[in-house]
Amino acid sequence: RPSGGPIRVTMAQKSSYWTSINDDIDAHLRRVIPIREPFSVFEPMHHLTFAAPETTAPALCIAACELVGGRRELAIAAASALHLMHAASYFHEHIPLTDQPRANSRPRPGPTFGPNIELLTGDGMIPFGLELLAKSNNQDDDDEHSDRILQVIIELTRAIGSQGVVNRQYIKAQCDESNPGVGKAGSTRIVTDKKGSELHACGAACGAILGGGKEKEIEKLRKYGFYAGTIQKMSKLEEAVKNREVIEEMRRLALKELEYFDEEKVEPISSFINV
Amino acid sequence: RPSGGPIRVTMAQKSSYWTSINDDIDAHLRRVIPIREPFSVFEPMHHLTFAAPETTAPALCIAACELVGGRRELAIAAASALHLMHAASYFHEHIPLTDQPRANSRPRPGPTFGPNIELLTGDGMIPFGLELLAKSNNQDDDDEHSDRILQVIIELTRAIGSQGVVNRQYIKAQCDESNPGVGKAGSTRIVTDKKGSELHACGAACGAILGGGKEKEIEKLRKYGFYAGTIQKMSKLEEAVKNREVIEEMRRLALKELEYFDEEKVEPISSFINV
Repeated sequence: RPSGGPIRVTMAQKSSYWTSINDDIDAHLRRVIPIREPFSVFEPMHHLTFAAPETTAPALCIAACELVGGRRELAIAAASALHLMHAASYFHEHIPLTDQPRANSRPRPGPTFGPNIELLTGDGMIPFGLELLAKSNNQDDDDEHSDRILQVIIELTRAIGSQGVVNRQYIKAQCDESNPGVGKAGSTRIVTDKKGSELHACGAACGAILGGGKEKEIEKLRKYGFYAGTIQKMSKLEEAVKNREVIEEMRRLALKELEYFDEEKVEPISSFINV
Repeated sequence: RPSGGPIRVTMAQKSSYWTSINDDIDAHLRRVIPIREPFSVFEPMHHLTFAAPETTAPALCIAACELVGGRRELAIAAASALHLMHAASYFHEHIPLTDQPRANSRPRPGPTFGPNIELLTGDGMIPFGLELLAKSNNQDDDDEHSDRILQVIIELTRAIGSQGVVNRQYIKAQCDESNPGVGKAGSTRIVTDKKGSELHACGAACGAILGGGKEKEIEKLRKYGFYAGTIQKMSKLEEAVKNREVIEEMRRLALKELEYFDEEKVEPISSFINV
């Protein structure tokens, strides 16, 4: 399949697919994080959940679940946990730890609740997302489902913690400190790119696990997610930095991972990389 | 059994029991959190894990597991996760969010890695603890074990998140702001007390779940843990504030919960409240 042409058509056809996924995730988050007592916890948590910038890793999680033949409901709690992880790390990244303006800190747009509440809300969001995921283990589901949820909890905690987002933030913090002038254009961008890629890789793998995918399907979708996340991040860069050739190469590699699956079923998820 | 007399004897006899539990938890933590690559993550995580003040909730978790007939290994990952949760919340409580000295902030004793690293390490510790717990699902264990681990993940995430530690910290932050003068002696103490009690309640319940305890055993041990955590916290207060009668009443209530179990098996865990 030549890149560019036919895929762009698919994308237009399939944009309703992503809209329906995003609507479902949004509705799920509004249902599970209502503004309820204790208000001191749930009011900021509710607002900050929806104030975080968009991430497409949760949608990719659902699409991967559906590609391997799973129902959307099986992956919705994991998708929501991914969104909460993303939001928590975003707010912690923007917490001022001093009154001095930091060299590369961009002030966070949107309403704020003050650093204290944003620290605590971030602390609460990740466990809350994992709690929702652990609770999604329905008695009606088959026996294997609880093992799959545990597998997904390992994926998610690893992606947030030592091997993932937190590790990236460390590197970023260290880069910012050692190169106060460079920051944004150099090290920060690379690190942030990788963070997005890994969150998409994790999301796609989690969806495949929950949908009952086989080992090989899970690993193919993990790689697809990594390329897809990288493509998306690169496409958002300014024209000057954007490297069209690299993006095309990434797209080729991403589509190669999908060759393993039924060509018909692959259309929705493959439209993700037509950005 | 009259309170005071015979129990104090038991305590002396049984102190080796708690020492052996604490040694096992310590050895487990040193094994799973070695100083390894990425050093930027694991060096501060290792040091902060052992720099946190002691908490006895993890030991209670192990003792509860053993009381219901479970092997110690079944609860060791949950006990370690409890310790990491406790450490993470401790370091986040002591992060300076401003250069202004805060009214009630007590400077944290021991070596520090700076607020940035302590923020990130706290962010990494809780997911890491849950990852270890989810991974402790051994193939050799019976089928029910993965369901029990999921149940424990729900207990732990709830105890850290919206219903637990984070909620307490919110209340504390609000109290400190509205009563900058009172703080330590008033609201803070109450809130902190409750946090310790709930962490012990959670620890005992988690141990009972992992040891294969029945619903009723789990709930009895949860209550025992709540009283035990409260007794311990109160016993550490200065003489002037300590209320011996309240402590004795709590001890009576705690022992009542243990009447449900075999009298012989109850000795080790009951020695916890002889502080």
